[in-house]
Amino acid sequence: MIEIAPGALLKTINSPADLKKLSREQLQELTDELRQYIIDVVSVHGGHFAASLGVVELTVALHYVFNTPYDQLVWDVGHQAYGHKILTGRRDNFVSNRKYNGISGFPKRGESEYDTFGVGHSSTSISAALGMAMAAKYKGETDRKSVAIIGDGAMTAGIAFEAMNHAGVADTDMLIILNDNCMSIDPNVGALKEYLTDITTSQAYNKLKDDIWKALGKLPVGKQFSREMASKVEHSIKSFVNKSSNLFEALKLRYFGPIDGHNLTKLVDTLNDLKNIPGPKLLHIITTKGKGYSLAEKDQTKWHAPGLFDKITGEIYKKRYELPQPPKYQDVFGHTIIELAEKNKKIFGVTPAMPSGCSLKLMMDQMPDRAFDVGITEQHAVTLSAGMATQGMKVFCNIYSSFMQRAYDQVVHDVAIQNLPVIFCLDRAGLVGEDGPTHHGAYDIAYMRCIPNMIVSAPMNEGELRNLMYTAQLDSTNNPFVIRYPRGEGVMPEWRTEMKEIKIGTGRKLKDGKDIAILSIGHPGNFAQTAIRSLRTQGVDPAHYDMRFIKPLDESLLHEVFQNFDKIITVEDGTIVGGFGSAIIEFMSNHNYKAEVKMLGIPDAIVEHGSLKELHHECHYDANAIVETVLDMMKDKIKVTELHQ
Amino acid sequence: MIEIAPGALLKTINSPADLKKLSREQLQELTDELRQYIIDVVSVHGGHFAASLGVVELTVALHYVFNTPYDQLVWDVGHQAYGHKILTGRRDNFVSNRKYNGISGFPKRGESEYDTFGVGHSSTSISAALGMAMAAKYKGETDRKSVAIIGDGAMTAGIAFEAMNHAGVADTDMLIILNDNCMSIDPNVGALKEYLTDITTSQAYNKLKDDIWKALGKLPVGKQFSREMASKVEHSIKSFVNKSSNLFEALKLRYFGPIDGHNLTKLVDTLNDLKNIPGPKLLHIITTKGKGYSLAEKDQTKWHAPGLFDKITGEIYKKRYELPQPPKYQDVFGHTIIELAEKNKKIFGVTPAMPSGCSLKLMMDQMPDRAFDVGITEQHAVTLSAGMATQGMKVFCNIYSSFMQRAYDQVVHDVAIQNLPVIFCLDRAGLVGEDGPTHHGAYDIAYMRCIPNMIVSAPMNEGELRNLMYTAQLDSTNNPFVIRYPRGEGVMPEWRTEMKEIKIGTGRKLKDGKDIAILSIGHPGNFAQTAIRSLRTQGVDPAHYDMRFIKPLDESLLHEVFQNFDKIITVEDGTIVGGFGSAIIEFMSNHNYKAEVKMLGIPDAIVEHGSLKELHHECHYDANAIVETVLDMMKDKIKVTELHQ
Repeated sequence: MIEIAPGALLKTINSPADLKKLSREQLQELTDELRQYIIDVVSVHGGHFAASLGVVELTVALHYVFNTPYDQLVWDVGHQAYGHKILTGRRDNFVSNRKYNGISGFPKRGESEYDTFGVGHSSTSISAALGMAMAAKYKGETDRKSVAIIGDGAMTAGIAFEAMNHAGVADTDMLIILNDNCMSIDPNVGALKEYLTDITTSQAYNKLKDDIWKALGKLPVGKQFSREMASKVEHSIKSFVNKSSNLFEALKLRYFGPIDGHNLTKLVDTLNDLKNIPGPKLLHIITTKGKGYSLAEKDQTKWHAPGLFDKITGEIYKKRYELPQPPKYQDVFGHTIIELAEKNKKIFGVTPAMPSGCSLKLMMDQMPDRAFDVGITEQHAVTLSAGMATQGMKVFCNIYSSFMQRAYDQVVHDVAIQNLPVIFCLDRAGLVGEDGPTHHGAYDIAYMRCIPNMIVSAPMNEGELRNLMYTAQLDSTNNPFVIRYPRGEGVMPEWRTEMKEIKIGTGRKLKDGKDIAILSIGHPGNFAQTAIRSLRTQGVDPAHYDMRFIKPLDESLLHEVFQNFDKIITVEDGTIVGGFGSAIIEFMSNHNYKAEVKMLGIPDAIVEHGSLKELHHECHYDANAIVETVLDMMKDKIKVTELHQ
Repeated sequence: MIEIAPGALLKTINSPADLKKLSREQLQELTDELRQYIIDVVSVHGGHFAASLGVVELTVALHYVFNTPYDQLVWDVGHQAYGHKILTGRRDNFVSNRKYNGISGFPKRGESEYDTFGVGHSSTSISAALGMAMAAKYKGETDRKSVAIIGDGAMTAGIAFEAMNHAGVADTDMLIILNDNCMSIDPNVGALKEYLTDITTSQAYNKLKDDIWKALGKLPVGKQFSREMASKVEHSIKSFVNKSSNLFEALKLRYFGPIDGHNLTKLVDTLNDLKNIPGPKLLHIITTKGKGYSLAEKDQTKWHAPGLFDKITGEIYKKRYELPQPPKYQDVFGHTIIELAEKNKKIFGVTPAMPSGCSLKLMMDQMPDRAFDVGITEQHAVTLSAGMATQGMKVFCNIYSSFMQRAYDQVVHDVAIQNLPVIFCLDRAGLVGEDGPTHHGAYDIAYMRCIPNMIVSAPMNEGELRNLMYTAQLDSTNNPFVIRYPRGEGVMPEWRTEMKEIKIGTGRKLKDGKDIAILSIGHPGNFAQTAIRSLRTQGVDPAHYDMRFIKPLDESLLHEVFQNFDKIITVEDGTIVGGFGSAIIEFMSNHNYKAEVKMLGIPDAIVEHGSLKELHHECHYDANAIVETVLDMMKDKIKVTELHQ
């Protein structure tokens, strides 16, 4: 392992107070060291990469100029906050970033007083910072500043607009810094992005401003064109340029910029100026995601979170295997939707800003008129899909489980109440690992199954995912259809199976057994299979059912289960409060069965970050946990059996 | 009952085809008749009022110009669509508006092919219409138009902005009509509203445009100021005005207007022009909510949905009672928050655009620096509240239950994961009556109780609401705290009780009993009490527990229940899938009790509109249903008892 050491200056920075002692020259040096330290650590320990490199200068400038933590910085999304963490007491601990029991990959209130607001999902920073500013104002803390740092990608989400609509009239001294790098994880899309490009390329804004100014300067002043008229025109144009010309000024935010976000001196000077300007304001800075690491600058999506890499050669390490490996569920989705779309002309694909992550990009490249990245706009993505569905389209709307929380009302109000057959592929369902609590897809089973008309399903493997996707797009499927599946690899190296229809609401008995039945949903069915292999060596032989649908439940299969077993274990990678297990015991209660049921799944607590293996263990629904639970439930029977042997 | 008859022309309009045969003069006449018919019907049968009056001319013009239903109109929110309904085959049926088994108060796909998209919640129209337009384009229906009609209030919600961000670059021929009347139900708020006012009052936009044009016209053309320069400046300013000056143009929507939305001729001409202009575009029209009924024009909030009234005198009928009546839960909230805020300086109140509906207006009037209407921005409202909570504020964030679906991710991500003690008052929880399926607060128990850290409660009456509000704002309460309560009256005429702390997670045994226990949550506890009075006359004597908290459950009380009763009924005004009853049987299963449990509540189906009484009956959780269920569960025991008598 290469030893990672911070640079000479960075080594001395234990808090922003240390930073403030530096000269301007030293500050630039520190910035370079900070960038290098991020490269050093992330290349060896992994994590988000390009975003933090892009805001190194901004991070240093903010802590230099503002009185943190009294002044409150709110980093939007937060995967760009590594520099912030390193400068605020977490330099040495930074190697534990995103590791089990280590520091979080995102700002987190419990971790540091400098982390004013926990983030992970995008576009919350303006609302949160405004809340802080309004409270400060009410409490008479007139010298206390709130700063939201938000990217142009995050600006497309509705909550950011809602917050600006309020901020513009709320009369606080809040500063919004728009970090414009033309990127979400994938390239940013939409009208706002084009608008920002217009501004920054000066074609609409700066050039015009200059032109008019120049033209006015050359105007004759004399008889024919009075000073008054010149003044009037100039004033009109000025007030026009200042007040209405700009989208942000239209929302009553004073607009400053754009300035170069990698020019430290300019940033420090500008922030110093802005600090003392009252009222709501927005500073537009232009940065390059991945700045200072040329490969990352060139392919920003790839280097968003590249995994481990050789920082010298830029080689991203990949595990090498002797045998063919199972694919990611994401790739199965990406290839399968194309396969289906080639045959079914009604199929559309929609993703809110996750084309690479969910692999819809494959279809976008191949069928650009049928697959769409709509930006970070989950609400819009769902209602757009509903609109398309009214025209007979079969839309696969792919949204990460935890992001689907953003569009819950649209699922209820626009899709389910109208019973439109939109297909929701909930990627990253269940625990997601290193991204932690903000990204775990823990609640979707609970929040989806309570909605009338919904079909809610989860495949146990790649073949099942394909069959569910096939079933969902059939003309005979007339309901909204949720297919939830986890991040990462499945279990079938030979995954390109022939697709076949699954009767909606039917599960599978995977094996017969005695004394006890395991009912699983989705990928954890594989944990159950591992557990069963282990249990059989111990003379215990459970039955195993892959229920496949949470809603509608396979009632005939469940009658079989409850008529034959009085001990039942449910396994799911979702919360056990109101989730799949809860649906099973609702069935039990409704039919007046009296089995002993143990529910395994995500507990009713915030689960922190770590590897999937660590978290499945902690949450007690991995194969070992299933084995333990079976043995515990069977202990009386096993004793009896042993007595009789 | 006054007989209501449509005017001579309106009587002949059975579909838009009939409309298209009229001359321009007749069209104006029809418009007047349509307005009068709305006044006639709503004054006698009730319903939303002012919104539909405001768009009578627009409605007639749209159906006159566009080829509906092939061209697709999407009415945002939809309470302004009465005219649309009357013109599209529902004139005679309009008297059944909002009544049980009658037509819906909102556009509804199942009701008419002219209702292209079901609405009720605001701000979905642009997404839905864009989805329709994209599908039409893909299918080669190049002559097919999509039109979204959206108010300035609805424009503040994030999804509208998300949709515009996409629409601007999506290359469809979609038209957005911005119906600008400065109103939500209450006056619209926020920067966007001020911006629109700026445009329409011409101070920033039109006047400047005129000024510059005039100034340019007066510029000398000759040696000193060449034609080229004049042309260059004019061109610059033109392109500036056209492309960047306007918020909507910034989002790549061609902007037209503002025009007078009550000038029928102008509307028809403009829509005819716009119909043939390709690309995404926005027409800004100015209307007056309540137009044509002067009292409504003057007090638009009061006349949003006034109830029954005398159309001549303008007297709004109120029921008169001999005895003091219980107050609305809304008013109890409104008065109680002030009472609490007078003592606790940390209390803030936040509402997204429902100050009158939820009665926060009382506090806004009395404590304007501590109570805020933030516009139709549920997402922002929640994260703003979270930001305030980080500063030690106790925020009562009051959001209707069905609208809270809009902010689900913010509840999970910004409040619950950080365990910030924001207080969510979920008004209109349970069935709401005449507003129907889009507004029923049916899912909140299910979608809230699956979130870790949440406290989820429901008061059975006014005194309990006050106690829960008191408890929620205590310093010792450190979790997010949901208090859900229904629309309308409680049961306590003497409601201003002394407030006292309720230990979190404790229920109440209201009465002992034998053989069977009723566990209720919230207001339906009163139905249970009525049922019990009736049952006692039949010799059946159930115990009754008001559980008060869905989360955390009162486990000690539940042990008492399950140890003493093997027949249990749960009663809630929420979905029985994953709801309160489900929580009770989770407890039962976790502790291996084996009671027979019947769950009463909202069934797993879309419940249509009607009076509360009708819907409670239909959903089978009113007092009669409880009686029936008890008798049914007890029938064996009752027989045995009878045998022994």
